[in-house]
Amino acid sequence: MAPKVFYISDGTAITAEVFGHAVLSQFPLEFESLTIPFVETLTKAEQVKRQINDCFITTGERPLVFHSIVKAEIRDIIYSSEGLDYDFLNTFVAPLEQHLGVSASPVLHRTHGKANHGYEARIDAINFAMDNDDGQTMKHMDQADLVLLGVSRCGKTPSSLYLSMQFGIKAANYPFTEDDMDNLKLPDALKRNKKKLFGLTIDPVRLHEIRQSRMENSRYSSLKQCRLEVKEVEMLFKRERIPYIDTTNHSVEEIATKILDVTGLERHMF
Amino acid sequence: MAPKVFYISDGTAITAEVFGHAVLSQFPLEFESLTIPFVETLTKAEQVKRQINDCFITTGERPLVFHSIVKAEIRDIIYSSEGLDYDFLNTFVAPLEQHLGVSASPVLHRTHGKANHGYEARIDAINFAMDNDDGQTMKHMDQADLVLLGVSRCGKTPSSLYLSMQFGIKAANYPFTEDDMDNLKLPDALKRNKKKLFGLTIDPVRLHEIRQSRMENSRYSSLKQCRLEVKEVEMLFKRERIPYIDTTNHSVEEIATKILDVTGLERHMF
Repeated sequence: MAPKVFYISDGTAITAEVFGHAVLSQFPLEFESLTIPFVETLTKAEQVKRQINDCFITTGERPLVFHSIVKAEIRDIIYSSEGLDYDFLNTFVAPLEQHLGVSASPVLHRTHGKANHGYEARIDAINFAMDNDDGQTMKHMDQADLVLLGVSRCGKTPSSLYLSMQFGIKAANYPFTEDDMDNLKLPDALKRNKKKLFGLTIDPVRLHEIRQSRMENSRYSSLKQCRLEVKEVEMLFKRERIPYIDTTNHSVEEIATKILDVTGLERHMF
Repeated sequence: MAPKVFYISDGTAITAEVFGHAVLSQFPLEFESLTIPFVETLTKAEQVKRQINDCFITTGERPLVFHSIVKAEIRDIIYSSEGLDYDFLNTFVAPLEQHLGVSASPVLHRTHGKANHGYEARIDAINFAMDNDDGQTMKHMDQADLVLLGVSRCGKTPSSLYLSMQFGIKAANYPFTEDDMDNLKLPDALKRNKKKLFGLTIDPVRLHEIRQSRMENSRYSSLKQCRLEVKEVEMLFKRERIPYIDTTNHSVEEIATKILDVTGLERHMF
């Protein structure tokens, strides 16, 4: 039976999930998880405690409880449940207080709240990525922090969106299409922003699979066309000395952080 | 002087950042941080160790080091630096091994790698959110998990994208515009998907500010128009019994998790 896991927070519970997921992914097991965010009142906390205790009674195993609860009186109720507490926030707060010589002054919703430094800039970046997706306009290339290039369906859109959402990067993206292949070159708006360009490439067989699921048995999705486009675009990247990476076996997190690592663009945190 | 912080990982370092950021946000201090991802070789690890030690020599203070390093030989090098290590992964792995009766078998890139369960579904959700943004088509409403409704610039697009990216939810969104105000009603494609509808609203004064920065001194951005649209749309939400929340003081994380909490939609983890 898959071990049961609770992620609990008086905020969004995103931090509890990210942390717990990272720790549990070290184990070769499947877990069954339930996330309970916004546990902000004593009544709600008592209710969650009952849920944890019921789980213990039903399964005979003490469930794992990952929590990031800022309010002490809420935390105490969860502590008093039958769950096994993994309180990653407070485990590290005491040693940090000692080292920094400053007391922690927990404020609810500070981690993922809107008061966060730079929130507007982040929303601007998301809007920028949307407005400058898929080469729909070249008007704002001068304002971009980064322009991703590549063939259709190589991962440009999810990567641009992730870069804007997670790191506040203004990322545009520009596709090379079938029609460009005879005489592949950079448009002027990209030429004058050469330092912002970053290429994505992909294994043609994988590209073929992805395109097939969008537009079956078309020229666009044929393996021949996929091979041609990838080859031409990679040659362009080399000719123009545009750095590029292969997205085939990488997640958006890996693609995005690799690009920031190579370009030296700053990672903002929200 | 702002305390120095290093986020280090042999993967993307996103988990180290999220964790460190959550812990440090408990303190009323500004920190100066540097993230170093993909520390995958001994040479790179030695280089990072020198960077940490140089920071100690320059500032006279031991920098804080948050790391999530899976490979033991890389971790040992970072441990041997002058930094103060906060190893949140391993702190919790030993007690979990004991409770689960299973040894951890760390695999690099398992947390944010592509091998993750459901990665394709996540990319599909992101593409869905893009293709069904801002009411550009009503064709796919039957396939949506969720449809966000609201006036222009109340937060629909960033919220839909976040829901798709972070939780794998297929979220469409549909705007009510100036022209709809005389006779506000739900289009048929939304009526037959009534259970998927969720409303966003916003303080008209804040809306006016946001619209002013997009289209100054237009009818669209006037306070009068903002007040009218918000009032009409909130009345529609009430009339049609569509649940809704006010986005004015909330981040995309808070909006997204609140929606999932109210609707009971499942949070997928990637």
